[in-house]
Amino acid sequence: MNRREMLKLSSYAVAAASAPAVAESAAPSGGGIVARWDCIELSFTGPASGNPFVDVALNASLRHKNRALTVEGFYDGDDSYKVRFMPDELGEWTWTTASNNPSLNGKSGAFLCVAPGEGNRGPVSVRDDYHFGYADGTPYVECGTTCYAWAFQARETQRQTIDTLSTSPFNKLRMCIFPKWYEFNRQEPPMYPFPRSGGVNDYSRFNAAYFQHFDRLILELRHIGVQADLILFHPYDKWGYQSMPAEVDDRYLRYVIARFSAYRNVWWSLANEYDLMKAKTNTDWDRYARIVGDYDAFGHLRSIHYSRHQYEYWRGWCSHAGVQDSRMDLGASWRQDWRKPLVFDECRYEGNIASRWGNLSGDAMTRRFWQATAQGAYCGHGETYLWPDGILWWSHGGVLHGTSPARIAFLRKLLEETIALGTGPIGFTSVAEDPMGARRTNDSVIFYYFDEHQPAEQTYLLPAGKTYTAEYIDTLKLTRTPLPGEYSGKATVKLPGTPWGSLWFREKGVV
Amino acid sequence: MNRREMLKLSSYAVAAASAPAVAESAAPSGGGIVARWDCIELSFTGPASGNPFVDVALNASLRHKNRALTVEGFYDGDDSYKVRFMPDELGEWTWTTASNNPSLNGKSGAFLCVAPGEGNRGPVSVRDDYHFGYADGTPYVECGTTCYAWAFQARETQRQTIDTLSTSPFNKLRMCIFPKWYEFNRQEPPMYPFPRSGGVNDYSRFNAAYFQHFDRLILELRHIGVQADLILFHPYDKWGYQSMPAEVDDRYLRYVIARFSAYRNVWWSLANEYDLMKAKTNTDWDRYARIVGDYDAFGHLRSIHYSRHQYEYWRGWCSHAGVQDSRMDLGASWRQDWRKPLVFDECRYEGNIASRWGNLSGDAMTRRFWQATAQGAYCGHGETYLWPDGILWWSHGGVLHGTSPARIAFLRKLLEETIALGTGPIGFTSVAEDPMGARRTNDSVIFYYFDEHQPAEQTYLLPAGKTYTAEYIDTLKLTRTPLPGEYSGKATVKLPGTPWGSLWFREKGVV
Repeated sequence: MNRREMLKLSSYAVAAASAPAVAESAAPSGGGIVARWDCIELSFTGPASGNPFVDVALNASLRHKNRALTVEGFYDGDDSYKVRFMPDELGEWTWTTASNNPSLNGKSGAFLCVAPGEGNRGPVSVRDDYHFGYADGTPYVECGTTCYAWAFQARETQRQTIDTLSTSPFNKLRMCIFPKWYEFNRQEPPMYPFPRSGGVNDYSRFNAAYFQHFDRLILELRHIGVQADLILFHPYDKWGYQSMPAEVDDRYLRYVIARFSAYRNVWWSLANEYDLMKAKTNTDWDRYARIVGDYDAFGHLRSIHYSRHQYEYWRGWCSHAGVQDSRMDLGASWRQDWRKPLVFDECRYEGNIASRWGNLSGDAMTRRFWQATAQGAYCGHGETYLWPDGILWWSHGGVLHGTSPARIAFLRKLLEETIALGTGPIGFTSVAEDPMGARRTNDSVIFYYFDEHQPAEQTYLLPAGKTYTAEYIDTLKLTRTPLPGEYSGKATVKLPGTPWGSLWFREKGVV
Repeated sequence: MNRREMLKLSSYAVAAASAPAVAESAAPSGGGIVARWDCIELSFTGPASGNPFVDVALNASLRHKNRALTVEGFYDGDDSYKVRFMPDELGEWTWTTASNNPSLNGKSGAFLCVAPGEGNRGPVSVRDDYHFGYADGTPYVECGTTCYAWAFQARETQRQTIDTLSTSPFNKLRMCIFPKWYEFNRQEPPMYPFPRSGGVNDYSRFNAAYFQHFDRLILELRHIGVQADLILFHPYDKWGYQSMPAEVDDRYLRYVIARFSAYRNVWWSLANEYDLMKAKTNTDWDRYARIVGDYDAFGHLRSIHYSRHQYEYWRGWCSHAGVQDSRMDLGASWRQDWRKPLVFDECRYEGNIASRWGNLSGDAMTRRFWQATAQGAYCGHGETYLWPDGILWWSHGGVLHGTSPARIAFLRKLLEETIALGTGPIGFTSVAEDPMGARRTNDSVIFYYFDEHQPAEQTYLLPAGKTYTAEYIDTLKLTRTPLPGEYSGKATVKLPGTPWGSLWFREKGVV
C-alpha cells in the first residue's frame, strides 16, 4: 500500500466510525474498508410499525468507477434495515439508498475495497465450460456432501458438523433453508421462517431470528472454505412451505437473496426434488429462476435437483447441472448435451439404512466419485449410517463414520496436485475404449479409471512430442505405485491386473 | 417293459441288423431301438458322382400314430447319405424316404423309441414364459459360457475343454460353426467348411469331414449335459463366410440343420454380432430365421446376438433373447417388454486382456450373474485371462483360471436346491424397492440380492398365511448364514450390513 492509499484508508476508517452498528462480526459496517469478496453490510434504523417486511422498499445503488449495481435491502427486525454487498473490484465504491420510506431514502456513503485476506478466493463460477474456479483464478475442484437439515439441529451438533467438515475433503454442502419432515427427521425445528401460531403461518412476515441463524451458518461455512449450496424449496414439509401462495414464494426468494447473496460461498439450488412438489408448475420454476437471475447481483451458481423427472439442464438460467442420478455411465454424454459442468449431487449415499438410496458400501460411494471424475464431471457424497443417537450425517451433520471420505480426500488431492498447471481443465477424451479416461486439455496430465476392469496391460496413443511418467493408483487401498520407465507415442503399459485401479500419465519436466 | 414290448423290441433289433451301418457310435442305426430324445441315424448308400450336395434331394417322412414329420437328409461324403431324427414320443415310429435319386427313394422302415437313459432329459425349451425346462419336465437353470473357436483347436485342448466343462457349473456353450479370425485368433483352422484351394472356396460343396468333427463335439457336449449354442454366422472372418451368396447361406443352413438338429442339446444362434455383418440386410436375417423355422423339425431354441444395435427380440421367431449387453439393470424391463426368457449371453468376461470387454474382475463377473438372476433373467460367462500359451477360454477353451466359476456354481446350486418344487418359476417381483428381488410364483422361495448395498436391516411384506426361515448369503465369500427366528407378514430382518449379500426366505415345512 502506498502513502496515498494509506491516507484514503484512514479517511474511510473515520467514515466507518460514524456508520450504523455492525450486526455480524464477519460483515464490516457500512462505510470503511472491506476486503474484496467479503460482505459489507450497510445498516440503518427505520420504522418498526406496520409491516416493514411488506410496506418498506429499500435498495442501494453502488458505483465503482463507471460500473453501477443495485441490490435490495431487507428488514432484519427491531427497527433494523440492512443492505449487503460483496464488492468484486478493488478501490473505492460509493453507494446511495432509495426507499419509499423517507428515513431510509437517499442515504449515501463510500467504502474502500482492499485485497482479500488469506483463504478468500472469491466466489466460485464456471470455468472452461465444464469446470469451476474461484474468482481469484484458483481452480475449484468440486467435492460436495449433504447435511440437509443441519440448520435445525442442536447448536452442539452444528459445531461438530463444522469441525468435521473442516478436516474432511468436502468443499460444498447441500443444505435446506426450510425445515425437513421425513424419515429420521420427525421433529419440529427450534424456529420457523415465518411467525407461526396454532399451526398457522403468518406469511406476511419473516422471522428475522430464523434467517440470522442461517447468516451464522453460512459464515461458519465460509470461514472453513465450504460452499453453501442453499436449497430454496423442497417437498419434505409438514408446515406448508412447499405450497405457499405465489407472492409469498417470490417475497421469500427476494428476502433470501437480499440476505445471503453477498456471501461469496453461496450457491442456489432452486429445489431438492422439484418434481415431487406437486403444488408447483413448470411456470413457477421458471419464475423462481427469473427472480434469482434478476435479484442476485453477484451471479452465484444456480441449479435444481430432481427425483424422477430429469430437469432440462440445457436451459439458460442454470449454470450447471446438479443431478440426482445413479446412472454414472451417462455422465459424459449428458455433459456434452448440456455444455455445462455436471455434478452428480446425489447418487445414493454410503450407509446401512433400509432404503436403497442410503445403503451403499463405502467402496461403491468411492467408485461413483471416480466414475464422475473420469468423465470430467463431479460427484456428491452423503452418509446414512444408522447411529444410536439418531444423528445421520446426510441430514443432521455431526461426525462421519464411513470409509469413502478418506478415499475421496485422496482423489481430490490427486486432482489438485496438478490442477494448478493452469488453463487446462480436466476434460473428457476418447483416447480409451470406454469413457473412463480424462485429461487436461494441455495434455500434461492424462488419467484413466479402470473401475471393475483389471487389464494386465494397456496400449495408449500418447500425444506427440511429449514424454510421460506413469503411476498406478489403487483407488480403494490408496496406494500409489510409480511404474518403471518413460512413455511416449504408442506406449504399452504393464499393469497389476487388479480392479479399482487408475493410471496417471504426467508429462516429464512439466508435472 | 412288459412281455409284448420285449417281443417288439427283439423284432426291431433284427431290423437294425439289416439296416445300413452306423456312422456315429452315439447315433443308433436306422431301424432298431432308440432312446427318446436320442438321435437315430438312417444311413444309405447313394450316388457319389456329380455334386451330391446340390444334385441329390433326400428327406424322410416319419410317423408316430397319426403324427407325421419330415426331416431333410444330407450327403456325408463317400457315397453316404444320412437322415437323422430325434424321436420325442415312446413307441413305434415308421419312416419312408423321398428322393430325386431312385436309389434313395421310397426306402422305409421302423424303429422303437424307448425310455431315455440316465442323464437324458430331452431338449430344452421355454417354460413358464421366462424360463427353461427339459422335455422330461426337469427345470433347466441356464448357466452358460463361451468358447467361440474351440472347434478349431488342437484335439488335446478340446478334450481338456470337455473335462473342464464337465466339472464346471456351465451347462451351455456358445460356439461358432465358422472359424474365427480375430485378436488372439490368427491362425488357419485345420479344416475348412467348404473345399478351399488357393484362397478360393468351392461353395457348391461341403467338406463333410469338417461337419463330422462338429458332430463329434456336439455329442461330447451332449454326453456331459452341456447345451451346444451353435452360432451360425459371425463377422470375424477372413475366408469369405460372412459374405457368401444368398443361395450358399441357405444351403449351408439347411445342411447344418439336417446334420445337427437331431441332437437334443442344440440351440441356434443366428449370429454373433449380427449388426457387424455389413454384407447382410434385415431381409437376410428374416430369411435365415424362416429357414431355421421351416427345416428344424424339433423346434430347438433360437436367438440372435448383437454388438451395438439391439435386436428386436419381440419378433416371433426367436424363442428367447440372447443379448450382448452390460446394462444389467435393464434386465427386468426388457424381459417384460419381450415376454421371453432373457439371457445376458455376453456381458463382458472375467479376465485381464487389454480390451474392456475382456478384463472384468471375478467379483464383477459374479455380480452380473446375480444381477441377472435377481431380475428373473440368466447370465453368460466368459474368461479372457492372458495365458502364456495363448489359450484363452473365451475362444479356445482349455482350463479356467478365474474366481467367478466357483461363485457361479454356488449360485446355480442355490437355485437348483429349490427349483424342483415344480411349477413355480423364478419370477420378477416388485416387493423390493429396486428390481433386485425375485421369487417363485408359488411364493415358497423369495430372495433378494443387495448388490453394492449394505442395509443393516430390511422390512418385507411376506405373503399372507406363510411362515419363512431366512438365510443370509455372501455371494462372493460363499458363506451361508441361517438367520435366527421365523418370519411372516410384515417382517423386519437384521442383516450384517455388508455388500454383495443375498437374503433368502424359504417357506417352513415346504422347503
